[in-house]
Amino acid sequence: MKVYVHNVKYYETDRMGITHHSNYIRWMEEARVDFMAQLGWSYQRFEEEGIVSPVTAIECKYKRSTTFADNVYITVDVKEYHGVRLKLKYTMKDEKNKVVFEATSEHCFMGKDGKLIRMDRAFPEFYQLLCDLAAKAVDS
Amino acid sequence: MKVYVHNVKYYETDRMGITHHSNYIRWMEEARVDFMAQLGWSYQRFEEEGIVSPVTAIECKYKRSTTFADNVYITVDVKEYHGVRLKLKYTMKDEKNKVVFEATSEHCFMGKDGKLIRMDRAFPEFYQLLCDLAAKAVDS
Amino acid sequence: MKVYVHNVKYYETDRMGITHHSNYIRWMEEARVDFMAQLGWSYQRFEEEGIVSPVTAIECKYKRSTTFADNVYITVDVKEYHGVRLKLKYTMKDEKNKVVFEATSEHCFMGKDGKLIRMDRAFPEFYQLLCDLAAKAVDS
Amino acid sequence: MKVYVHNVKYYETDRMGITHHSNYIRWMEEARVDFMAQLGWSYQRFEEEGIVSPVTAIECKYKRSTTFADNVYITVDVKEYHGVRLKLKYTMKDEKNKVVFEATSEHCFMGKDGKLIRMDRAFPEFYQLLCDLAAKAVDS
Repeated sequence: MKVYVHNVKYYETDRMGITHHSNYIRWMEEARVDFMAQLGWSYQRFEEEGIVSPVTAIECKYKRSTTFADNVYITVDVKEYHGVRLKLKYTMKDEKNKVVFEATSEHCFMGKDGKLIRMDRAFPEFYQLLCDLAAKAVDS
Repeated sequence: MKVYVHNVKYYETDRMGITHHSNYIRWMEEARVDFMAQLGWSYQRFEEEGIVSPVTAIECKYKRSTTFADNVYITVDVKEYHGVRLKLKYTMKDEKNKVVFEATSEHCFMGKDGKLIRMDRAFPEFYQLLCDLAAKAVDS
Repeated sequence: MKVYVHNVKYYETDRMGITHHSNYIRWMEEARVDFMAQLGWSYQRFEEEGIVSPVTAIECKYKRSTTFADNVYITVDVKEYHGVRLKLKYTMKDEKNKVVFEATSEHCFMGKDGKLIRMDRAFPEFYQLLCDLAAKAVDS
Repeated sequence: MKVYVHNVKYYETDRMGITHHSNYIRWMEEARVDFMAQLGWSYQRFEEEGIVSPVTAIECKYKRSTTFADNVYITVDVKEYHGVRLKLKYTMKDEKNKVVFEATSEHCFMGKDGKLIRMDRAFPEFYQLLCDLAAKAVDS
């Protein structure tokens, strides 16, 4: 998988001179969208299939600060998936390969009616792909 | 009309230590929504009536900086209205009554089909109200 | 302690029609600043005393969605404090008193030199206040 | 000059399903930083030389909407420069080469003391470069 790169914008900094902490949550989304697209599930495809995948939980640790014009390298992995909740893991590193931020996010898959989708039945290939990636995460 | 007050948030500041200039555009929207609600046209009412009122143009001047925890006092007035484009005027002042920002915004009124609404026919009372406010602006 | 109220802004919504999840992280900050001010520690005082208090970790759960013009009622409590890391707890409720979001954030206290401050020595009264609030949290 | 490309983020959309209008102001900054860097004046260089260049005015027209995942192509030109106020011009186009947004921004150049810099004396080469670009704008 290709690493996602976010270049820190001036308007993402705050009065302390560093990136405001809320922006990392947005970069998680940017990297997740890119990760899913690399799996063949672009946001457009989600929309066409009528799936929404809201964030239900986030856990994160801020390790080092970043600031304007820094490149932040973001890797995303499937951490857990048992058919309902998908847990993703994010690692963000700076240009010196130091970890600046670590996080997980949890998601469910719903139809436009707001009801949970049985992924194994409705999208068995996507379901299997996520299971396989989760299994690999356990092994490593 | 009641003045709208925005209290500057920490995350609205940038690395220069002051409010990032893009936020004033957002406060214009906050104050405009409040102004319209004071006229009896809350956003909910716009939605119920099926009207959207996108911003088509903005002109603004940044006079003084503001920063975290400052109160900004925002007045909104109708500047021009001839039935199609509505032009609003904004003045933002700090706690010492100094002007920090001045702007105008232009809006049209469209139905959900994206077509311009003939306001004089569809909403004659709202149309008249805006005309009256625009006439007052010319007088003053 | 007075509950902090955030009125959801139009620009905080996203294409799903609801508040974008990153904004809750910003409201945590708004409510935390207000909570600290109620304890006698306004941001201005932090700055005067030369203390910065960065976020080191966040955990949060999204329970229900909110959207434009909703009032969100935010309570903040000290959850844990043993002299170094301060852990705060947030509960956000909607107008029907339903929990929409729950979170904790962790913070340290540093001087402008980036070194951790021994709060018990440097600010014994603030230290004691936070310890007392943490003790109350355990009891309840 | 290389065109600057901004890929619209999910969190930049609003409840109308399109990019919130305040984000274009941020993209102007992104493109301006890139334009200046292409001229040999990266933000880092501005900081090293002790120059700040705040936005003093903006005028913009919203022509068409954009939304999540769209690429927006932004060109920046010097429009006017007589030694004090620099006026830049922006044109944003979508993937079909349609203009979505047009704007100008005005800037001054100040030292860290907040005083205007006499650019012709302090930075004669940069001054000349901006004058030349402005002259070209008049010709075209």
